Amino acid sequence: MQPERLLKQIEFIKEIDKVKYIKRKTRLLASDRHENNAEHSWHLGLMALILAEHANERVDLLKVLKMVLIHDLVEIDTGDIFLFDTAKNHDNSEEELTAARRIFGLLPENQAQEMIQIWQEFEAGESKEARFAKALDRFEPILQNASNNGGTWAEFKLAFETVYQKLKGIANGSKNIWAYSEELLDESRAKGVFGD
Amino acid sequence: MQPERLLKQIEFIKEIDKVKYIKRKTRLLASDRHENNAEHSWHLGLMALILAEHANERVDLLKVLKMVLIHDLVEIDTGDIFLFDTAKNHDNSEEELTAARRIFGLLPENQAQEMIQIWQEFEAGESKEARFAKALDRFEPILQNASNNGGTWAEFKLAFETVYQKLKGIANGSKNIWAYSEELLDESRAKGVFGD
Repeated sequence: MQPERLLKQIEFIKEIDKVKYIKRKTRLLASDRHENNAEHSWHLGLMALILAEHANERVDLLKVLKMVLIHDLVEIDTGDIFLFDTAKNHDNSEEELTAARRIFGLLPENQAQEMIQIWQEFEAGESKEARFAKALDRFEPILQNASNNGGTWAEFKLAFETVYQKLKGIANGSKNIWAYSEELLDESRAKGVFGD
Repeated sequence: MQPERLLKQIEFIKEIDKVKYIKRKTRLLASDRHENNAEHSWHLGLMALILAEHANERVDLLKVLKMVLIHDLVEIDTGDIFLFDTAKNHDNSEEELTAARRIFGLLPENQAQEMIQIWQEFEAGESKEARFAKALDRFEPILQNASNNGGTWAEFKLAFETVYQKLKGIANGSKNIWAYSEELLDESRAKGVFGD
């Protein structure tokens, strides 16, 4: 018979398997296959490892990794929320908080509290780690869309200005990554992938 | 025009998208859908975060996370290597080293060296972080197979003793996780999922 604490942790580890079924709007690089949240979170983890030197301020890499690995767990309950959805706000909604409490609440109390705190710090987007983690979260779809003839920008006929305004916050986390992102956005604009 | 260093990092980040297409033998929890390497690596990352307290010795969590997030990148070139494959050895082969050099070699020199070193430390399985990371890598398929009527154990008609001998090394990383794993293995044996 195993200790209660380990059993709670295992329940959480099983529950989050569901993240692998949550499809994002974006598609894999040069592909028509949609990405799921587990793949997305893994890729952000690798980006954090490799691109940390480009954060505007020196970041606590372990904290950034925690943020990107857990940031989409709430979508087990809420479903994928598209950045450019006009009906449903992506920001820290009551529905997301309820989801965070249920999902992280499967863990032993001290871990549940730590994970909810890290998720809330990410959502608030104010600390240097949250700004960098959010920059990565915005950057991955730029790479994907740029490789897919505009991807979701073209699919949802988004205007260049709408996209630009939503993404320019990347600079708050990394000026370098934003400079590169702007080049990709300009190249995509030149190809005529954006709506009016 | 972006600095050469950032462009190399982006090339690496694009290259590793391929990990999302590499299917493992194991299937998602209570599911017939095969898991891919990106999902697997993400799940190990979460397991490392949540289960670190069960490592036999106190581990450097950041190093464990690096290990589990990158450990399967070489399979971009080698393809998935099944733990119980009798023809192809899973241990640090020449083919895997060549793959590591090519894939991590896309990165700037200092990062390529760091990543190859971490991957080799994982493969060697000797440091406390490598032993714990390998324990997680062995543990996830146990959870999956136990939820799938024996999963790959039944599919490949593996004998209980074969599986037990291959997995007992989990105890080198975490006695607690191995104790729990033994319970799951015993329950599966009682269901008759193993071969002779």
